[in-house]
Amino acid sequence: MRGDADPGGGLVERVLCTRRATMQLVEPLSHEDMVVQSMPDASPAKWHLAHTTWFFDRFVLQPIGIPPVRAEYDYLFNSYYEAVGARHPRAARGLLTRPSVSEVLEYRRAVDARLADLEGSPRLAGIADALELGRNHEEQHQELILTDIKHLFGENALLPVYAAHGVHPKGDLAPLAWRRHDGGLVEIGHSGTGFSFDNERPRHAVHLRPFEIATRTVTEGEMIAFVRDRGYERPELWLSEGWAWVQANAKRAPMYWSNDRVFTLIGARVHDLHAPVCHVTYYEADAYARWAGARLPTEAEWEASAPPLAGQVWEWTASAYAPYPGFRPLEGAFGEYNGKFMVSQMVLRGGSCATPRGHARPTYRNFFPPSAAWQFSGIRLARDA
Amino acid sequence: MRGDADPGGGLVERVLCTRRATMQLVEPLSHEDMVVQSMPDASPAKWHLAHTTWFFDRFVLQPIGIPPVRAEYDYLFNSYYEAVGARHPRAARGLLTRPSVSEVLEYRRAVDARLADLEGSPRLAGIADALELGRNHEEQHQELILTDIKHLFGENALLPVYAAHGVHPKGDLAPLAWRRHDGGLVEIGHSGTGFSFDNERPRHAVHLRPFEIATRTVTEGEMIAFVRDRGYERPELWLSEGWAWVQANAKRAPMYWSNDRVFTLIGARVHDLHAPVCHVTYYEADAYARWAGARLPTEAEWEASAPPLAGQVWEWTASAYAPYPGFRPLEGAFGEYNGKFMVSQMVLRGGSCATPRGHARPTYRNFFPPSAAWQFSGIRLARDA
Amino acid sequence: MRGDADPGGGLVERVLCTRRATMQLVEPLSHEDMVVQSMPDASPAKWHLAHTTWFFDRFVLQPIGIPPVRAEYDYLFNSYYEAVGARHPRAARGLLTRPSVSEVLEYRRAVDARLADLEGSPRLAGIADALELGRNHEEQHQELILTDIKHLFGENALLPVYAAHGVHPKGDLAPLAWRRHDGGLVEIGHSGTGFSFDNERPRHAVHLRPFEIATRTVTEGEMIAFVRDRGYERPELWLSEGWAWVQANAKRAPMYWSNDRVFTLIGARVHDLHAPVCHVTYYEADAYARWAGARLPTEAEWEASAPPLAGQVWEWTASAYAPYPGFRPLEGAFGEYNGKFMVSQMVLRGGSCATPRGHARPTYRNFFPPSAAWQFSGIRLARDA
Amino acid sequence: MRGDADPGGGLVERVLCTRRATMQLVEPLSHEDMVVQSMPDASPAKWHLAHTTWFFDRFVLQPIGIPPVRAEYDYLFNSYYEAVGARHPRAARGLLTRPSVSEVLEYRRAVDARLADLEGSPRLAGIADALELGRNHEEQHQELILTDIKHLFGENALLPVYAAHGVHPKGDLAPLAWRRHDGGLVEIGHSGTGFSFDNERPRHAVHLRPFEIATRTVTEGEMIAFVRDRGYERPELWLSEGWAWVQANAKRAPMYWSNDRVFTLIGARVHDLHAPVCHVTYYEADAYARWAGARLPTEAEWEASAPPLAGQVWEWTASAYAPYPGFRPLEGAFGEYNGKFMVSQMVLRGGSCATPRGHARPTYRNFFPPSAAWQFSGIRLARDA
Repeated sequence: MRGDADPGGGLVERVLCTRRATMQLVEPLSHEDMVVQSMPDASPAKWHLAHTTWFFDRFVLQPIGIPPVRAEYDYLFNSYYEAVGARHPRAARGLLTRPSVSEVLEYRRAVDARLADLEGSPRLAGIADALELGRNHEEQHQELILTDIKHLFGENALLPVYAAHGVHPKGDLAPLAWRRHDGGLVEIGHSGTGFSFDNERPRHAVHLRPFEIATRTVTEGEMIAFVRDRGYERPELWLSEGWAWVQANAKRAPMYWSNDRVFTLIGARVHDLHAPVCHVTYYEADAYARWAGARLPTEAEWEASAPPLAGQVWEWTASAYAPYPGFRPLEGAFGEYNGKFMVSQMVLRGGSCATPRGHARPTYRNFFPPSAAWQFSGIRLARDA
Repeated sequence: MRGDADPGGGLVERVLCTRRATMQLVEPLSHEDMVVQSMPDASPAKWHLAHTTWFFDRFVLQPIGIPPVRAEYDYLFNSYYEAVGARHPRAARGLLTRPSVSEVLEYRRAVDARLADLEGSPRLAGIADALELGRNHEEQHQELILTDIKHLFGENALLPVYAAHGVHPKGDLAPLAWRRHDGGLVEIGHSGTGFSFDNERPRHAVHLRPFEIATRTVTEGEMIAFVRDRGYERPELWLSEGWAWVQANAKRAPMYWSNDRVFTLIGARVHDLHAPVCHVTYYEADAYARWAGARLPTEAEWEASAPPLAGQVWEWTASAYAPYPGFRPLEGAFGEYNGKFMVSQMVLRGGSCATPRGHARPTYRNFFPPSAAWQFSGIRLARDA
Repeated sequence: MRGDADPGGGLVERVLCTRRATMQLVEPLSHEDMVVQSMPDASPAKWHLAHTTWFFDRFVLQPIGIPPVRAEYDYLFNSYYEAVGARHPRAARGLLTRPSVSEVLEYRRAVDARLADLEGSPRLAGIADALELGRNHEEQHQELILTDIKHLFGENALLPVYAAHGVHPKGDLAPLAWRRHDGGLVEIGHSGTGFSFDNERPRHAVHLRPFEIATRTVTEGEMIAFVRDRGYERPELWLSEGWAWVQANAKRAPMYWSNDRVFTLIGARVHDLHAPVCHVTYYEADAYARWAGARLPTEAEWEASAPPLAGQVWEWTASAYAPYPGFRPLEGAFGEYNGKFMVSQMVLRGGSCATPRGHARPTYRNFFPPSAAWQFSGIRLARDA
Repeated sequence: MRGDADPGGGLVERVLCTRRATMQLVEPLSHEDMVVQSMPDASPAKWHLAHTTWFFDRFVLQPIGIPPVRAEYDYLFNSYYEAVGARHPRAARGLLTRPSVSEVLEYRRAVDARLADLEGSPRLAGIADALELGRNHEEQHQELILTDIKHLFGENALLPVYAAHGVHPKGDLAPLAWRRHDGGLVEIGHSGTGFSFDNERPRHAVHLRPFEIATRTVTEGEMIAFVRDRGYERPELWLSEGWAWVQANAKRAPMYWSNDRVFTLIGARVHDLHAPVCHVTYYEADAYARWAGARLPTEAEWEASAPPLAGQVWEWTASAYAPYPGFRPLEGAFGEYNGKFMVSQMVLRGGSCATPRGHARPTYRNFFPPSAAWQFSGIRLARDA
C-alpha cells in the first residue's frame, strides 16, 4: 500500500483509534459468542481480535526488534501468510477456547501499549506503511466481525439480536432510473495519493462501450417479484454453475429470508420493500439481472460511472478478480495480502453498512467466490446503451 | 429401567447429589470451554448441562403438570427423542452461544428447585422410575463431559490441562495372567434387583465353550511393542474395514499419542508403560489381539468370568450391540433410549476412570461404533481354552 | 473349507461344469454390458469372469508350479487378498476396457485347459481343497454377476431386459402362518461332512428361548401395506441409523420400485402381490418387522427352525456377522476369505433365486452391510413365543 | 454463430465429411473402450458419437419437421440444454451400455442419410446456421474423444496405446525468445466473416500496455527444471487455491508424468525435453510463470500479438471467461451453448494437436476450470515491456 501520510504525527493515534472502534463492535457479545466459528469461511470474533493484533505484533513490532508478546501466537493467529511459518488450520479456529477472551484482550492491550510507545519515535518512518496497512487490515476485520456474528446468530433458533439499531442497510424510496455513460477510453485504478491496496494499482486505461447504470441497487421488493415469478425455478435465468447451486441447496430465496421474514443484526423483521436486497450470491445477482433484462456492470464501468458511494451493500460486478495490467504485489509476506487470491473470485464494489466509514473508496476492490452470500452483497444493474 | 428403591425417601436427594457432582466437573472450565463442539460426536459441556436438565424437565416434571421452564428448550436441548418433537441438529450444538452458560445454570437451578419441591410429595410414586433414569442418564453425561472436553483440549496446540490429578487410568504392575472358565450354560443380564437399563434385560442363558480371559487390560508398554513390530503397517492383522481406516487416516499409533508423548486430562506426559492403553478403536483392539495370538472376549464371556471391575478403561468386546433374547424396550419416548441404536455398534464392558463411581455394574452394556476412540476404551484379551 | 469329496475323480469335472454355467449367465450380455461398473459395490461381468479364473490360476495352478497365464493379471484381478500383493482399486474395476472380453475369455479357456489336464493327476490330492473352494467361489460370483447386471440395467432409462424368464423370485399364495420352536440348547454350524466355508464352523451349542418363525417371507403386497401406512415416514419404526438413511436418501419404497412398477431382470412389471419382497436393506427389514409387531430371527433361530430352503430371497437375520466360538480362519491367503469381514455386517440366510442350485445349505452364512439392497434380500419374521 | 457460406452448395457435404472424420477417430477403439466413462468430466466415446448425432437430429432435422430417429434419444443424449427437456445425468453417461455401439452407429447412419437428403433442398436456407454450428460442435467433440480416451487409458495399468503416431504435441528446438507489442488500443474478437461462436463476438476495442510475449510455449525440459527447483513445494509460487490443490492431491509433477516417463496416446515414453509441456492446470501454468519471472498473457494480449497458431497445446491465459462487451447469446436453446458457462473458468487460446485442422482461429475462445488438466493444455509466457 502507499501511505502518504506524514510518517509519525497522527498515524499511531489513528491506528489506536481504529483499534478502539474494534472493541466497540464486540461490546454486545458475550465471551461465548466470541469463541464459536459457525462455518469455515467465518471466524470467531475472538480470533479477529487476536489476529488483527498479531498483524501489528508480527509485521510492525517484530521487524523493529520488539519481541513477540507470546511466541505461540505466531502459530495460533496467523491467517494465511505462508512466508511466516506454519499456522492453526482455518476451519478449526473455533476450537481455540484457549487463550481466553480475557487473554486476547490482554494481548490487545500489550500490543496497543507498544504501538503507543512508538509515537514520536524515529523508528516510525520505517514502519509507517506497515502501520497504515495494519490499520486498514483491522478495518476489514471490523466488517468481518459483523458478518460472521450475523452468520452465527442466524444459525440459532433463538435469533439473537446484536444491536437495537444500525448495522443494517437503509432503504431508498427513489424509483429505479438509469444514468448513461458514453464509453470510450477511461482510466481506473488508484492514482497514488492516499492509502490504497496493491490490487487497486496501477491506474490504467480501459476502453468502454456506451452503457447505462442504475441509480440505485435492487430492493427487497424487486427481489420478491423475482421469487414470485419463479425466478429460482427457471434454469434459463441462471449460469450453469448457479443452477447447480440452486438445486444442490434447494434455494428459493436469498440467505436469511425465511417465512416472509428477514433475519438481521437488529432482529428478525418483516420485509422492507425499499431496503436494498443483500446477502445474495453472484449467481443470484446474475440471474436477477438476466430476469430484469439487464446485466451486471464490469468493475471498470462501475468505477468510471462512479455511482454515489451510498455504501449500503457491496455490489457484485461482472468482473473476475484479476491483477490490473502492470500489477506488482508488495514485497515480502505482504505480497500474499491480495495477489494470491486472484482466481475463482468476483469483484464487488462500493461498500456496505458494515464497512467502517472512510474505509472504502471508488477504486476499492473487494472480492469473494461467486457462491459467497454471508457478506452484505447486493445488486446494481447495468445495460448496453 | 427398574428402580426398586422406595419411591420417595432419598431418591430426590440422590438425584440432586448427582446433579451437584455434574457441576463439580465443569468447575475447571471457562464459559468459552463450555460452548464449543470439537466434532459431531462430541457435545459442548454447556449442552450436557442443559440437556440433562431438560431430561428431568421434560420427562419428570412436565408429565405431572409442571410447565416447562422455557418452552424453546424443548427444541434446543432434545438430543434424539423423535417422539417428543423436532430438535436442534446434533452437529450444530456448538453454535448455541445463546442461551448463555449463565442462563443454563439458571435453568439447572430452576429445575433443581422443582425437583426438591417433590420431596415427600405423593406425586413421587408415579415418577420414581423416570427420576432414577434421569439420575443414571446424568451420570452417563458426566462421563461424556470429560471425554468431550478432552477431545476439545486435544485439538488445541496449547494442550490445556483440565485438572492436576485424577481422571486418568491408573497403571497395574502385575504381569499378564490368564484365568480359565469352563464354559457351559451360564446366565447373563440383569436379574431385576436395583436399577438397570432396558438393554441389560432380560437375564437369559448363554452357552459358552471353555475359554481363558486376561487378568488385566493391555498396557501402553504392550501397545508400544505392537507399534514397534509395525502393527499398523501389516494388513494381515486387521479387519478389512479396520485396515481401510488405518490407511484413510494414516494411523500409526492410538489417539492422543504424538512424538512419544500422550495427551491426557492432566497434561501431556511421557509414556507410562504400565498404564492401561486407552482411546483405541475396536479395529485397533481387534488387531492388537490378533497380533498377541489372542482375541477379544464376547460380552457373555466377559460377564460370565466377571473380571474385577477395575474400571480404568472400557473394554471392547467381540459382540455387536444387539437386543437380548426377549428384550422389551421401555414404553413411550424412553423406548428410544437404548433400542434404536442396536446396529453397527460394538459392546464395551467394565467402566473407565471417567465413569462415575457406582454407575456401572457387571451387566452394564456400553456401546460405540467400531471407529470411535474418544472414549476411554481399552483392550482385555481372551483365548480359547 | 472342507472338501470331503474323493480327491480326483469328478472334482475337476465339477469345477469345469460350474465354470461352464458361469458362461451361460453372460450369454445375454454384450461386451459393452460386461465392462461397466455401475457402483463401487458392484463389479463388471468381465471382471467377475476374470477374477474367478485368476482364483484358480493363483491359488490352484501357481502353487503346483504352473506359471501364471499373464503376470499382470495378478495385479488386475486380485479382489482383496493383501497376502498376495498389490491390486487394482476396487472402485476402478469398470475402467478396465483392456484386457478385452475376448482376452478374458481366452484367459478362461487357458485356465480351463490347465485344470482339465489335472484330471487323474497325482498332484490333485494337494489341491483338492483349493479346487473345491474355487468352485464355490465361482458360484458366489455367479450370483453377483446377476445382481450386478441388474443394478447396471436398473440405472438405464431404457430398462433393458436380461432374460425372458427365470432369475426372479417366485410368489407364494399361502397365507402367513407361524411355526413354534420350543427353544433350549440347540446346535448350529456345519458338522463337517461335505463342503463348507470356514465361517460356518465349528458346530456349537446355542441356547434359545421359545419362539415362532413365519412360514414364508414377506410379500410385495405386505410391503405395499407398510408403505401405505406411511411406514417410511414414521421414525418410531426405525433404527436410528436406518432413519438417517431414509432421510438422506428420501426413501419411500424399496429399491427398484418406481411408479407402481418394479424393475426386474425379466423387465419392468406391475406388482405381484404374492411375490416375496426383495432388495430391501436391513433397516427396512427391521422396520417392517417392528411395524408388523414382530422381529427378525437370529441366525441361530433361523438355522434351528430350518425353514424350508425355498431360496427365493436371502433373509436378513438379527445377527451381526461374527466368528463362531472356536472359529479358525483358513491358513494363508484363504484366511482372508471370510474372517476379515467380521464387523459392521449382518448375516443373511437361505439363498435366492440368483443363487446357483446346490450352492447354499442350512448352515450357510451370507453377509452384507445393513445398507446393502442390491442383493435379492428379503424378510422373514419371527416373534417370541 | 455466423455461417456466411452459401446456404446449400457444399455445406451438407462438409458436415458429412466432418462426421466421417469422427468415425476415423474411434477406429482404434473396441466397443468396450467406447462405453466407459473414466471421470465425470469425461464422456464415453459412444456418448460423443451419439450426442453429436443427436445435435443434428434435434436442432437441424426436427425443426424442419423430420421426426426423431428414436424418441428416447432426446433424453439419453442431450448434454446440457435445459430448454429442450430432462436428460440423463452427466456423471452417469458411462452406465449406458444400451443402446449399443452398433445401435449408435445405426443412429449416425440414419441421421447422415437424412442430412444427405437435404442437399439441394430449399429447406436448407433456414437451417444453414444450425448445420454449420453442428459441424463445429462435432469438431469440438472430436477433440474430446481424444482427451477422454487418453484419460481412460491413463487409468489402466496396461497403459494401452491408442495409435502408433500423431495425436501428440510436436517439439520445437528453438530457444525461447520474446516478441514485443507496443500496446495501445487494439481490436479483438471476431469481425463477422466466416463462422464464429457467439462468445467470440462482438469485435471490440481493448487498451493494452506494452508487453512481450514468448515465441514458443514452455517445454517438458523447462518444466523438469521447475520440478527440480522444488516448484511444487514452494507456496510462494502458487495462487492460494492452487497451493491447496497441490496439497490435497500431493502433486509433484504434471498429469501423466510418472517415474520419469510420460503417458501419451502413442504409448508411455521418456521425456522429450523439447516437446511442449501439456496437461497442466491453470494453477501450474500460473506458478510456472511466476517461477520464471514472467506471467501468463491476457487473452487480449494473446490475440493482439497473434502468436503463430502452432496449435500443439492450448495456452492458458490470465483471463477469466466472461462475455465480451455487447455480447448477445444466440436465440433459443443455442443460447445455452457458451453463455451459461461464463463464471469460474479461464480462457485458453490457440488449439492443440488434438484440435481438428481448421477448427480454431485466432479469435477462438476455449475455456476450462482452473483445475482441469485432461485437455492438451500448456503454457505461453508474457511479461510487461
